[in-house]
Amino acid sequence: MSEVAIIMGSDSDFSVMKKAVEVLNDFGVKFEIIVASAHRTPDRVKNFVTDCEKKGVKVFIAAAGCAAHLAGVVASHTTRPVVGVPISSAPFDGLDSLLSTVQMPGGVPVATMAVNGAKNAALFAVEILGATNPEFEKKLSEYRREMSEEVERKSEKLLQTVAEMTK
Amino acid sequence: MSEVAIIMGSDSDFSVMKKAVEVLNDFGVKFEIIVASAHRTPDRVKNFVTDCEKKGVKVFIAAAGCAAHLAGVVASHTTRPVVGVPISSAPFDGLDSLLSTVQMPGGVPVATMAVNGAKNAALFAVEILGATNPEFEKKLSEYRREMSEEVERKSEKLLQTVAEMTK
Amino acid sequence: MSEVAIIMGSDSDFSVMKKAVEVLNDFGVKFEIIVASAHRTPDRVKNFVTDCEKKGVKVFIAAAGCAAHLAGVVASHTTRPVVGVPISSAPFDGLDSLLSTVQMPGGVPVATMAVNGAKNAALFAVEILGATNPEFEKKLSEYRREMSEEVERKSEKLLQTVAEMTK
Amino acid sequence: MSEVAIIMGSDSDFSVMKKAVEVLNDFGVKFEIIVASAHRTPDRVKNFVTDCEKKGVKVFIAAAGCAAHLAGVVASHTTRPVVGVPISSAPFDGLDSLLSTVQMPGGVPVATMAVNGAKNAALFAVEILGATNPEFEKKLSEYRREMSEEVERKSEKLLQTVAEMTK
Amino acid sequence: MSEVAIIMGSDSDFSVMKKAVEVLNDFGVKFEIIVASAHRTPDRVKNFVTDCEKKGVKVFIAAAGCAAHLAGVVASHTTRPVVGVPISSAPFDGLDSLLSTVQMPGGVPVATMAVNGAKNAALFAVEILGATNPEFEKKLSEYRREMSEEVERKSEKLLQTVAEMTK
Amino acid sequence: MSEVAIIMGSDSDFSVMKKAVEVLNDFGVKFEIIVASAHRTPDRVKNFVTDCEKKGVKVFIAAAGCAAHLAGVVASHTTRPVVGVPISSAPFDGLDSLLSTVQMPGGVPVATMAVNGAKNAALFAVEILGATNPEFEKKLSEYRREMSEEVERKSEKLLQTVAEMTK
Amino acid sequence: MSEVAIIMGSDSDFSVMKKAVEVLNDFGVKFEIIVASAHRTPDRVKNFVTDCEKKGVKVFIAAAGCAAHLAGVVASHTTRPVVGVPISSAPFDGLDSLLSTVQMPGGVPVATMAVNGAKNAALFAVEILGATNPEFEKKLSEYRREMSEEVERKSEKLLQTVAEMTK
Amino acid sequence: MSEVAIIMGSDSDFSVMKKAVEVLNDFGVKFEIIVASAHRTPDRVKNFVTDCEKKGVKVFIAAAGCAAHLAGVVASHTTRPVVGVPISSAPFDGLDSLLSTVQMPGGVPVATMAVNGAKNAALFAVEILGATNPEFEKKLSEYRREMSEEVERKSEKLLQTVAEMTK
Repeated sequence: MSEVAIIMGSDSDFSVMKKAVEVLNDFGVKFEIIVASAHRTPDRVKNFVTDCEKKGVKVFIAAAGCAAHLAGVVASHTTRPVVGVPISSAPFDGLDSLLSTVQMPGGVPVATMAVNGAKNAALFAVEILGATNPEFEKKLSEYRREMSEEVERKSEKLLQTVAEMTK
Repeated sequence: MSEVAIIMGSDSDFSVMKKAVEVLNDFGVKFEIIVASAHRTPDRVKNFVTDCEKKGVKVFIAAAGCAAHLAGVVASHTTRPVVGVPISSAPFDGLDSLLSTVQMPGGVPVATMAVNGAKNAALFAVEILGATNPEFEKKLSEYRREMSEEVERKSEKLLQTVAEMTK
Repeated sequence: MSEVAIIMGSDSDFSVMKKAVEVLNDFGVKFEIIVASAHRTPDRVKNFVTDCEKKGVKVFIAAAGCAAHLAGVVASHTTRPVVGVPISSAPFDGLDSLLSTVQMPGGVPVATMAVNGAKNAALFAVEILGATNPEFEKKLSEYRREMSEEVERKSEKLLQTVAEMTK
Repeated sequence: MSEVAIIMGSDSDFSVMKKAVEVLNDFGVKFEIIVASAHRTPDRVKNFVTDCEKKGVKVFIAAAGCAAHLAGVVASHTTRPVVGVPISSAPFDGLDSLLSTVQMPGGVPVATMAVNGAKNAALFAVEILGATNPEFEKKLSEYRREMSEEVERKSEKLLQTVAEMTK
Repeated sequence: MSEVAIIMGSDSDFSVMKKAVEVLNDFGVKFEIIVASAHRTPDRVKNFVTDCEKKGVKVFIAAAGCAAHLAGVVASHTTRPVVGVPISSAPFDGLDSLLSTVQMPGGVPVATMAVNGAKNAALFAVEILGATNPEFEKKLSEYRREMSEEVERKSEKLLQTVAEMTK
Repeated sequence: MSEVAIIMGSDSDFSVMKKAVEVLNDFGVKFEIIVASAHRTPDRVKNFVTDCEKKGVKVFIAAAGCAAHLAGVVASHTTRPVVGVPISSAPFDGLDSLLSTVQMPGGVPVATMAVNGAKNAALFAVEILGATNPEFEKKLSEYRREMSEEVERKSEKLLQTVAEMTK
Repeated sequence: MSEVAIIMGSDSDFSVMKKAVEVLNDFGVKFEIIVASAHRTPDRVKNFVTDCEKKGVKVFIAAAGCAAHLAGVVASHTTRPVVGVPISSAPFDGLDSLLSTVQMPGGVPVATMAVNGAKNAALFAVEILGATNPEFEKKLSEYRREMSEEVERKSEKLLQTVAEMTK
Repeated sequence: MSEVAIIMGSDSDFSVMKKAVEVLNDFGVKFEIIVASAHRTPDRVKNFVTDCEKKGVKVFIAAAGCAAHLAGVVASHTTRPVVGVPISSAPFDGLDSLLSTVQMPGGVPVATMAVNGAKNAALFAVEILGATNPEFEKKLSEYRREMSEEVERKSEKLLQTVAEMTK
């Protein structure tokens, strides 16, 4: 049974969103994934959201660019948490995507990530799932610890480069 | 039988949109008007658009602020011309509304007016109706002529003010 | 007899606007096309618009970049619908083009598309023509249906990619 | 036992955040609330977050303006979901707050709401709690239904205003 | 015989542009002034510019807001220097006016002043006239000297305020 | 003997900069203050900076709005630390001031504070002086401690307000 | 005897400014050219401007990027017309250059061209020189006529491309 | 004993920050350098800053991109001068980094350099150190003189290029 559903406005968004897929996969989260456009296929979006809700999906991740209405449209059809990922797109580099996703009116929230923030969208979904599954909480702590260690390793490596430069 | 339908995301948008109502009224255009939110009442929007299309409405005018998805959602449900009016709203003064309305993906156009451009939305609707009703074309030419004369009157009046200042 | 006229401020805009030409061609719409600059050839713009109006052109599409005055200048010479396409150009990526095209004063509307929204400009012109020609309405519905099916096909294909990644 | 914790960078943020308090109160959610600045009192922030986590707080809401680091700092100290509310502040009206809150690097997500989106922050927290408490899910559906009915009531009322104008 | 001509897109622009009138008056420059809109009265603009050129006007000052095409349109009709004044207007505070005025394509220059820079537009016109009239050069030097002295006087006065604060 | 010199482009900037005066006064720092414009009185700026350097001034604080060149011009005349305060001014609310102050080319640094960041400019000057005067270091720690306590007091007070709301 | 002086903040600006050199050369205008930085060499700028003024230079063209103070600094040292060319530079693509150049305070005007508008800066200088030299007026009219003809030629050529596409 | 400490949010920032290393090295300044993220390793940042302060570090340089909290977090842990370098990063080219770094609240200053202004950050640190070490003051004057001479050399070289073009 899927716990997360990913909706993308266009298949070209997958070059960004595959990072979300990787994170969910690494954490062992089951998920649905679909291409469905708020503008080109409004009914497909609605049906997918309604079906997912019935099947027990707990978090939605919606990614779109330009006038990025997808996350807002998903949120209009469910009261489950919706995470929005604004996709950077020409010519405004995602400013339009960001404002279209985040500036939701009162009553229908969308939890917006950074532009192209696919990895964080998946991690945030796992944080939500952590409320009902302590296993995820533990894995998230582990993930943070590894990140922290990686920073230290990179720092060590940099010290050598600087030593070379300044000797 | 209504030829134009006006949809507003919130009743507060009417303080701007009443100018569109005045223009349509002055030109003798019959219209529907409704408050329906893309996020709070997605089904109401869809039903209204579908009904209007069946009843022969020829142009839609959609006005909304912030993450202004309304015009795009209307356009996703019809192939009749949709005119979008971004409503200025705090804190970004309508930049979010403008980008959310105008930056539509290929395939589903929204004809966007200036921020708060309610008057022009109505005039543009009349221009579209002019294609099937020469009466409207004549009235539009008359409207332009009056605008032009008003500019001249205001210019005359200004000359007097300047003459006072510089004598 | 042409029903649509396309005006570009520069021949370099054609790399974007050829998508409008393709759409009009696909829908079987007859059109005029011309390069005429609001700043370099103001009389040429006026004469072209006046001639087109006399010849029965029903919709104008005007495309320009930077201080993109072309659509506004076309609109100042006609009461037929004018569709504006802001062209993305260095260094502001089309923000100047967008604001110059969309922020028209009350009385002279320009129906603005997304930056580089050539395809949508042509589709919107067809939507306007649909008011007097039910053939276009039918073709537009068909066009939407095909778009919708393409989304589904792409979604199917993506599922396989994801299945590969996560197996 | 509190399920939600609200942190504000300044007591002046409460004029915005009281809407979040009202929503949590209306939904019967227990919460902590504190003023703690990421810059003026970094240890106070850390201690509060660590304590809350131990006490079983499930969602954090962090609100700040200008170089709004608070939500990010909270997120650096916990793997529980953190909801960020950028507060509009002079002179940039919240653009700085929004970008400082939403543009988080990969690994440490902040779920960003609209600028001043206090109400939605609380509703989103309730959506997260809904995963473990079906009571909240039911209340959220009820809340949506009431919003929808209010839109209809306002629409009815507007029709009368328009009827007055155009009779 | 007028040496400068001021064109405003709307009579409301005069609240800003009266500073230009005052400067020209103070310097003893003869000028024409007119309200003429690039969009509402394109022929009026062209005729005015052509007439002024014939009558020996040496510098044009054009002021407009929003999609501020006026200066560009004036420049398209003359090879005399055109000074553009972007007028600040809601909702974008003049960013649209500035970009519409300054981002002219190669071949047709507009000398753009700061948003609402009416005083500088007039001073710049006087600087141009200074090329053929040494009297103006002398007056400009005098004007600068007075500005400089005023700065010193204000500085003196401020020192007293500070002395009060810090004693 | 003054250790800090404050230069303002206009006496109107003092409504913002008096906070810097208050902080310097509270910390017992001796300072010079002057109105001198980079554009209206370039020689006055240069002479003041050169004189101050000779007299042993250790830090310069320069405040200006719009095309805010003052801090950069001061920095071009000295190798002592220059702190820039962009002043918010119509119509762009200080975005122009900020970019004009901060985007200095390589070789001539300006330490830029937030828009209207007069208080922080003075505190930063004290931090620099702290390098040679341990008294200032001690006072700064004290200042931080008081800020921290004030946050706690405000938090306490807010708790009562919230208790009233939710009882 | 030079009539125009070009000052660039950096030799790298010449890749843009060579278009100004070409135009001046084509029109037979004598000019000075120099690299002088407002920040790195403030005295060099002042001396150059003062010398040029004495030698009879009638128009200054100043080009710079980032915190582009050069045109303003030149204008602070002369009452001859100063034309500013904001140079596009990373990372803000010239928005900082534009605002730093155009947003001059009242009293010291800079005639700002489009970002990278080197060609127009030279043409505008020629327009100013036209006031005292009818030869330049004639050449400018000729230049406009050629531009206009080039537009027509390009339009003809495009028609063939379109004919190919749509046959 | 190190006098300066450089902290980078990510090792990828070193491609920009190596210019700061080069300048410090050229001026003979001893420094620490570390990778430590405000979000991924908050305790590492705090510990490093506290240690450096104890060891006598006099100036901190902090560089980060996106929601660039690092400089602010460093400043929250010390009263020594903190110099912030916003790193340009996709998709907003450093606007988010700049605003996150510069818009600090009153009480905790960060001295912000231009986006990617690594060289100036190091020069500014040297300017601060100059207060206690006259050797640095002398070297800075020498550095300025060399910069000035380089400008002159480049100007000479450009004159030859222009002579070629225009002969």
